[in-house]
Amino acid sequence: MNKLLIVGTVAFDAIETPFGKTDKILGGAATYIGLSASFFKLKSAIVSVVGDDFPQEHLDLLTSKNIDISGIEIVKGGKTFFWSGKYHNDLNSRDTLVTELNVLADFQPKVPQDFKNSDVVMLGNLHPLVQSSVLNQMETQPKLVVLDTMNFWMDCALPELMEVIKRVDVITINDEEARQLSGEYSLVKAAAKIHTMGPKYVVIKKGEHGALIFQGKEVFFAPALPLEEVFDPTGAGDTFAGGFSGFITQSENISFENMKNAIIYGSNLASFCVEKFGTERMEHLQQEEVVNRLKQFKALTQFDIDLA
Amino acid sequence: MNKLLIVGTVAFDAIETPFGKTDKILGGAATYIGLSASFFKLKSAIVSVVGDDFPQEHLDLLTSKNIDISGIEIVKGGKTFFWSGKYHNDLNSRDTLVTELNVLADFQPKVPQDFKNSDVVMLGNLHPLVQSSVLNQMETQPKLVVLDTMNFWMDCALPELMEVIKRVDVITINDEEARQLSGEYSLVKAAAKIHTMGPKYVVIKKGEHGALIFQGKEVFFAPALPLEEVFDPTGAGDTFAGGFSGFITQSENISFENMKNAIIYGSNLASFCVEKFGTERMEHLQQEEVVNRLKQFKALTQFDIDLA
Repeated sequence: MNKLLIVGTVAFDAIETPFGKTDKILGGAATYIGLSASFFKLKSAIVSVVGDDFPQEHLDLLTSKNIDISGIEIVKGGKTFFWSGKYHNDLNSRDTLVTELNVLADFQPKVPQDFKNSDVVMLGNLHPLVQSSVLNQMETQPKLVVLDTMNFWMDCALPELMEVIKRVDVITINDEEARQLSGEYSLVKAAAKIHTMGPKYVVIKKGEHGALIFQGKEVFFAPALPLEEVFDPTGAGDTFAGGFSGFITQSENISFENMKNAIIYGSNLASFCVEKFGTERMEHLQQEEVVNRLKQFKALTQFDIDLA
Repeated sequence: MNKLLIVGTVAFDAIETPFGKTDKILGGAATYIGLSASFFKLKSAIVSVVGDDFPQEHLDLLTSKNIDISGIEIVKGGKTFFWSGKYHNDLNSRDTLVTELNVLADFQPKVPQDFKNSDVVMLGNLHPLVQSSVLNQMETQPKLVVLDTMNFWMDCALPELMEVIKRVDVITINDEEARQLSGEYSLVKAAAKIHTMGPKYVVIKKGEHGALIFQGKEVFFAPALPLEEVFDPTGAGDTFAGGFSGFITQSENISFENMKNAIIYGSNLASFCVEKFGTERMEHLQQEEVVNRLKQFKALTQFDIDLA
């Protein structure tokens, strides 16, 4: 089986949406990526860090999904990264209430030996120096390196971010971040400019409005599934990235045609993530539900106009 | 050839976008619908009203596109409806600067005898009583009646609007209007509620984020084509409606499968409309360009995941 290496936060989240409120629950980019990628046939490992306040049951959950957690460092006496946010009524925007870096402040990622030859590396949202450090530890060139990032790093660590962006094949960012990074309002122009920074493939996530993937002049669009209820958008972008990188890892095919399928899988898995608070929906999601929803994606998008 | 009857404004617009500004130019819902529908094999007529300040060349343009203008009343001494608006930098929102109803205030639509048996009726955005009056004049039941409307009528003429909505097969409105009309935030729930008001098919236009068509539990999505430049969004929704109703008229097929194609055509034609100011792009658009862009829509949306 092919190997997927995931780096990102494993964290506590406290979330408030118009539908309710949680105490500290399991969160973090790597957690969502890992859960999402676990729907594919692959070997995955997470590189991250937590404090010794982090419950064993959360680690056991990851292990139960066949995720190698030997790269998750547990810092004695340390406290786990904590994020708290409150979503606005439309669920499209949120205020960050609390960000406690804790053990993340001094994080030195250590890639497990068995994953230094991973086929795909998924660099979840983290300090760009941590992302670079993971790439530096690889002993063979991965077939595909995917990077997710956010506006925070564009504001605070742009030179380091540009360095790691140079080294990746795929970047996934949201529409506002693509505009910020490129200085272009049009997403077509933004993607063209981001191509020149390094990534051959540019994925622009538009939340409830779907996702675009660009390769040069080519573009493909995966809609978000129209849902009756969106309960909690937390982790949707990471779940998307996990579906994308997980499918590519399983299929061993990095053609643009196959990446179309990969963003459909990403959008598919993300559509489940938002149906319940935190990771709850992803923890209990069944393979059969994923396949059934793919049929919905086909019905949603496939048409047959004869162009002859 | 099948017949398409179009009712709506024929007007002057003055438009300001971040890219420039126009004096009074040709505008109006029926104008955009008519130009867009002219790309299909059909007989069309516009029912509308203008003042005698309306230039003959604008009427000649419509005639040159094989649109029957005998239903456009010219009021002696009257002034043509005038709208002026200014778009914000993101082009997604605008302020109305001027609305002069002029001859529209007392408009009594008269359907030309030859179009009282039209196959499809496209009720463009106008007072719901005008829309109803057109339906009252039909001598045979159209195969499909499509209605476009806007929030203005929900605010000022809701009972009259609900009356005409009852009588139509398809309603096209934007996402905010769907939410206002239904009182539901989720577009899935909004569409379900609007179904109960009468229309079997609910089309929700999301501007640069594409369009959804709902029939009961079924849903299909047409993306907007990602463009390098959007110059002027004026008329895009009407152009969409013209492509939708024009394609249905030509194809004589009101199945949900065919409506999928119809909203793809609508989205396709709208993608041209926004490339220049006002009607300019639509006036000179060639059939070949439309076909080529359909290929782009296929490339943008079609994927091949094996679900076996």
